[in-house]
Amino acid sequence: MKEMLGRQRAVSVKEGLQKILENLPDFTPDAERVSIEDALSRILAEDIYSKEDLPGFDRSSVDGYAVISADTFGASETIPLYLEFSGEIKMGEIPSTRLSRGKAMKIATGGMLPEGSDAVIMLEHTAPVDERLIEILRSVAPGENVIRRDEDIKRGELVLKKGHKLRPQDIGALAGLGITEIEVYKKPLVSIISTGDEIIPPGEKPAPGQVRDINSYNLAGLVIEAGGIPQRMGIIRDDYTLIRDTIKRACESSQMVLISGGSSVGTRDFTARAIDELGSPGLLFHGVTMKPGKPTIAGIVNNVPVFGIPGHPAAATVCFLNFIKPVIKTLAGDTSPSIPKTLRAILTKNIPSSPGRTDFVRVKIIEDRGNYLAEPVFGKSGLITTLVHASGIVIIPDERLGAAEGETVEVILFE
Amino acid sequence: MKEMLGRQRAVSVKEGLQKILENLPDFTPDAERVSIEDALSRILAEDIYSKEDLPGFDRSSVDGYAVISADTFGASETIPLYLEFSGEIKMGEIPSTRLSRGKAMKIATGGMLPEGSDAVIMLEHTAPVDERLIEILRSVAPGENVIRRDEDIKRGELVLKKGHKLRPQDIGALAGLGITEIEVYKKPLVSIISTGDEIIPPGEKPAPGQVRDINSYNLAGLVIEAGGIPQRMGIIRDDYTLIRDTIKRACESSQMVLISGGSSVGTRDFTARAIDELGSPGLLFHGVTMKPGKPTIAGIVNNVPVFGIPGHPAAATVCFLNFIKPVIKTLAGDTSPSIPKTLRAILTKNIPSSPGRTDFVRVKIIEDRGNYLAEPVFGKSGLITTLVHASGIVIIPDERLGAAEGETVEVILFE
Repeated sequence: MKEMLGRQRAVSVKEGLQKILENLPDFTPDAERVSIEDALSRILAEDIYSKEDLPGFDRSSVDGYAVISADTFGASETIPLYLEFSGEIKMGEIPSTRLSRGKAMKIATGGMLPEGSDAVIMLEHTAPVDERLIEILRSVAPGENVIRRDEDIKRGELVLKKGHKLRPQDIGALAGLGITEIEVYKKPLVSIISTGDEIIPPGEKPAPGQVRDINSYNLAGLVIEAGGIPQRMGIIRDDYTLIRDTIKRACESSQMVLISGGSSVGTRDFTARAIDELGSPGLLFHGVTMKPGKPTIAGIVNNVPVFGIPGHPAAATVCFLNFIKPVIKTLAGDTSPSIPKTLRAILTKNIPSSPGRTDFVRVKIIEDRGNYLAEPVFGKSGLITTLVHASGIVIIPDERLGAAEGETVEVILFE
Repeated sequence: MKEMLGRQRAVSVKEGLQKILENLPDFTPDAERVSIEDALSRILAEDIYSKEDLPGFDRSSVDGYAVISADTFGASETIPLYLEFSGEIKMGEIPSTRLSRGKAMKIATGGMLPEGSDAVIMLEHTAPVDERLIEILRSVAPGENVIRRDEDIKRGELVLKKGHKLRPQDIGALAGLGITEIEVYKKPLVSIISTGDEIIPPGEKPAPGQVRDINSYNLAGLVIEAGGIPQRMGIIRDDYTLIRDTIKRACESSQMVLISGGSSVGTRDFTARAIDELGSPGLLFHGVTMKPGKPTIAGIVNNVPVFGIPGHPAAATVCFLNFIKPVIKTLAGDTSPSIPKTLRAILTKNIPSSPGRTDFVRVKIIEDRGNYLAEPVFGKSGLITTLVHASGIVIIPDERLGAAEGETVEVILFE
């Protein structure tokens, strides 16, 4: 067989990702304006500076009495002090009077401290003597049980950075600052092309030799989870011109292209050739030293990353997690750190592996009397059920020869 | 102060959750029919049995030659055997002839094995001699490099169980079986009531003493992440009749009620009293031995779980993660195991804690030359920024006195 395009040397997972990321153009996604109620998990397209102090006034963080802290110094359960009751502070209102020495005003959590007061003593550290006198059983320090007017957020402070993925608490902070609409990045559109003469849509009945399209449905779900919008381009025949023209059209109408199901050498070579011919820099690699997922193809066609994804479902998922997910994150404008979501679990069986490649072993998590067990899901990477039965993946790095039964491993959990 | 309703004894986190879960009625959510393309993260409302074998025919898992394995026995690089080339199998079609002894047919990954053949030899273990003869450099075992017709899924097999949360690979499996529409459970509707005379909507300008509603926005996001649909009931005054009537209305129009922001003793007691008066079994607990989040209130009003949520934002989040999230999962019909998403990290500072309560300490994850550090975010639980700066939570159990700088801890990551 002739040496195929770009198959000269397989790259490592790390090299492969680096090649793609360093060839990605500098890129700022378009922005759109959304209400904070629709902003969960969206990526901020602007820096958010606060225009005001939060909470905006000195506020009690407990139920108790607003006092002048110096008035409580020396108070204890055995030698209490006494303050004069000077009325109750209404929630949401400015206290009617200034607090003067020797006095205390009742205040609820969230209430505004009266002028003159600098601390709150908790209800449980006081006892009413009569309608006018309150017994103080503890001293409080200046500022105790008070949230200062700018303690949460200071006016002018950078609260949330451009590129941050918005979580519930971030939306809470925006609401607190009175920001009800924000600029977020538009989600990247990811074209998914299914190839293979044997592939038919899921709604059709396969003739002998035909199978329904599994991969593009798996991939579409992964794209959504990663923050993209899948755009299905249909199933096309194993024909070079057709593959090339469809990739071209996809590059023009989306921010990323996935060619799914090119599992045979022929289709893979068509894909690699088309990527290389369609634009610059073209093909970046063809083949990765990982299992499953070795026949992964990646390139960039006129600023659009294009991936040829192995046809075996488990290989497609491994390829997605290693290469496509980080690229979608970049295209989405998401600059927040990637923190792996893991679980430590005890291996129930030996995992064999060969040096010189990274193994991604599907495992099922089983809870067993408070312990988590990781049971390897063996089976060919062409079986979708090996993914359906799995809860996550254990990585066996290049230099390791496997992992042993009873060993504690870190499982990268599926979303 | 008089002994307040239900505040007799604070429950532990475990006791509290158990009380709620064992008082939840047996409940099957309503179902709705959706396309598999809209089914990601939805909960299956039916068991999925396969009506057919997958892939449905014996299929090659590599590029190579379909052979009769016995014809290859004894072949090696040094003593090769020779088979007669008998044509190429077209993808997606039934092989035109039966394979007879001494012959081999070229087959691509995913191709259908011809009758008579029982194995595939990989291309790299063969060499063409001329147009008619192929050199075989290795032997293959029966079944080698073949996915049997029912190896992925057997006809009649239970593929996905009712109550399973659908992931990308599950949708792939459904597509593979030709199932394009499925029954999923409707998401539970969760009412959010904001209380507090000092609370105003985020779109308004606060007067001194007033603050904008932060909690109900934080909670709405958490409800969405947990699989529910938030239904905002507005901000109501601290008035017993108003609180009771709004809870009643919310119980009638949704599957769960959250009363947010009742941080003062007065509101908390209103909430507890209303829950207890409105229906059976009423109040389940008022107070949890945890920090933050001690003043959490929970009850069930005529089958609808109702929570009084502490007003401090960090306390509200801790209350949500411990109690409300598992209850939403139950109401959503989601019976898949709850696998915590964690990361092991090294504590950068001591965390003090008191025995007899569970501490939930917000931490920020920092990556430092391949290591993950967990930096405690100190600060009052009333500050929303303590949540904004955090990536997750470290749990210090009841019996522990804290955690030490340099210790490796498990961080429960925010979604």
